[in-house]
Amino acid sequence: MTEKTKIGIVGYGNLGKGVELGIEQNDDMELIAIFTRRDPKSLDHPLMENMENMESYKDKIDVMILCGGSATDLPEQTPEISKIFNTVDSFDTHANIPDHFANVDKVGKENGTLSLISTGWDPGLFSMYRIMGESMLPVGNTYTFWGKGVSQGHSDAIRRIDGVLNAKQYTIPIEKSLDRVRSGENPEFTTKEKHLRVCYVVLESGADKAKIEEKIKTMPNYFDEYDTEVNFVSEEELDKNHSGMSHGGYVIRTGVSQNETKQRMEFVLDLGSNPEFTSSVLITYARAVQKIHEDGKNGCITVFDVPLGMLSPKPSEELIKKLL
Amino acid sequence: MTEKTKIGIVGYGNLGKGVELGIEQNDDMELIAIFTRRDPKSLDHPLMENMENMESYKDKIDVMILCGGSATDLPEQTPEISKIFNTVDSFDTHANIPDHFANVDKVGKENGTLSLISTGWDPGLFSMYRIMGESMLPVGNTYTFWGKGVSQGHSDAIRRIDGVLNAKQYTIPIEKSLDRVRSGENPEFTTKEKHLRVCYVVLESGADKAKIEEKIKTMPNYFDEYDTEVNFVSEEELDKNHSGMSHGGYVIRTGVSQNETKQRMEFVLDLGSNPEFTSSVLITYARAVQKIHEDGKNGCITVFDVPLGMLSPKPSEELIKKLL
Repeated sequence: MTEKTKIGIVGYGNLGKGVELGIEQNDDMELIAIFTRRDPKSLDHPLMENMENMESYKDKIDVMILCGGSATDLPEQTPEISKIFNTVDSFDTHANIPDHFANVDKVGKENGTLSLISTGWDPGLFSMYRIMGESMLPVGNTYTFWGKGVSQGHSDAIRRIDGVLNAKQYTIPIEKSLDRVRSGENPEFTTKEKHLRVCYVVLESGADKAKIEEKIKTMPNYFDEYDTEVNFVSEEELDKNHSGMSHGGYVIRTGVSQNETKQRMEFVLDLGSNPEFTSSVLITYARAVQKIHEDGKNGCITVFDVPLGMLSPKPSEELIKKLL
Repeated sequence: MTEKTKIGIVGYGNLGKGVELGIEQNDDMELIAIFTRRDPKSLDHPLMENMENMESYKDKIDVMILCGGSATDLPEQTPEISKIFNTVDSFDTHANIPDHFANVDKVGKENGTLSLISTGWDPGLFSMYRIMGESMLPVGNTYTFWGKGVSQGHSDAIRRIDGVLNAKQYTIPIEKSLDRVRSGENPEFTTKEKHLRVCYVVLESGADKAKIEEKIKTMPNYFDEYDTEVNFVSEEELDKNHSGMSHGGYVIRTGVSQNETKQRMEFVLDLGSNPEFTSSVLITYARAVQKIHEDGKNGCITVFDVPLGMLSPKPSEELIKKLL
């Protein structure tokens, strides 16, 4: 048995907690410490450490799994922490990925560390499916559908409306459109033909239902291009029926070979818990980062740079024998 | 524009013809020659060459795509041809893959060539799904279902029965079992619970239907453990309704995270043409082999050793921007 990969977690929200639990399912990994900005004593957890003590773990941790948010945490944390540690993050602001990559790559090359950014399920697993689909069926179309699941960004946007106390917004793929894609007709969709948006909203007493419904349905960028269903519920009902973390989605590649033969590759994710699955993917890539760093690579990489065999704890011979 | 990858095809059956067509869908590739054991003049094709002239193409071809069969062609051809060329093959006799790997690896290391063996869709794409599923959901089960599609091996077995003129055998996944897997109950199946076998058989005149049906249904290794349906048809009907090459299948990974939350990853292939899709996968991996060989690697590799970014003709920056 080789030595276990020593993991640190940065950030202890849903994702950090998911990584903590997930590591217990992987015998080749060991959790060393969890770093938080809060007072570690307030959390009553033997592995909790303050962010400020991170540097003292330099030789005790192989890979830091960064569990902060993409809006403000990761753009600063990943370059900063990769000065000292190999890291993995789930940075998912698509438009800013090239900049984030460049920042982290520079730090990694200067400091001899390796970081893998933007993994999870999208970006991450779905990106892998997209590249496989496009490469293996070069003449065709790729369709990504998300849901059914809660969109944090859309729920937040509703909560910012005056008179709204709380809200959850489900993104739901439209089944009829999925079927059209599967048929191989290569349809082009408007935004509203792919996804439906269903909202559950808790109002302040006395708030104007009709006005708020109108505000949601016409909100630019978030709802105006969609068919949106608005339901008003009590805080109790929201808690009881809409606090789950399930999510999922589809990547479908339909293509034709030279003879116009139809071919379809379809990838489905059906997740009971979005953060727990994302955690699991982060752990898998922490394993790969450790191996690739040991092979002498520094800088920044993505899921596109990782041979799939490195995702597994099993030796190469066993993979060939049992999984090929 | 960098130089095109120069491809040779060895063997001109369904698979070789599929590779020839598939290369036309990939602008970064160029077909240089097709090698056959037959008299090339008999085939009336400008790129046809006799096997014996292969060595004269040493500096003209980057990767040879080997399109022979796994039973007798590839065990000899891959090690032999990889003395001179980088190669890709679809060797699919699972039990013999480790030996085939060792043979090809030795030749490649001695001669400075790189070969990727056993790609296509199973082994190949399905193997990739299995390793992703097992790594990302370490506590769970992986299920592989094949079909609906013709099994060449089973069709051949029926044809060897006295009194049988021709036959096609479809392997069909049992829908009810797929649904049980999807529900996350992690069922254990007997052989007959996963797949149904449906046969279309053409008899010699005067052959004993009942006896032949019995022989098929009780044939050890091939049919005795399955529910098998036998239909007797005319040669015309077999030609008309059962000469398609469609195939497909499912790899489903169901797992639970530490909180017992159910998670499912499902991969579906729905192929209008089995050989055309396999060809397409071989072409994709020929591209990767050329890149990895240029990076200095020799010997034998499998789909587990290839970073997914190498499957694409697009530069890394574009992949990050558009597909991640």
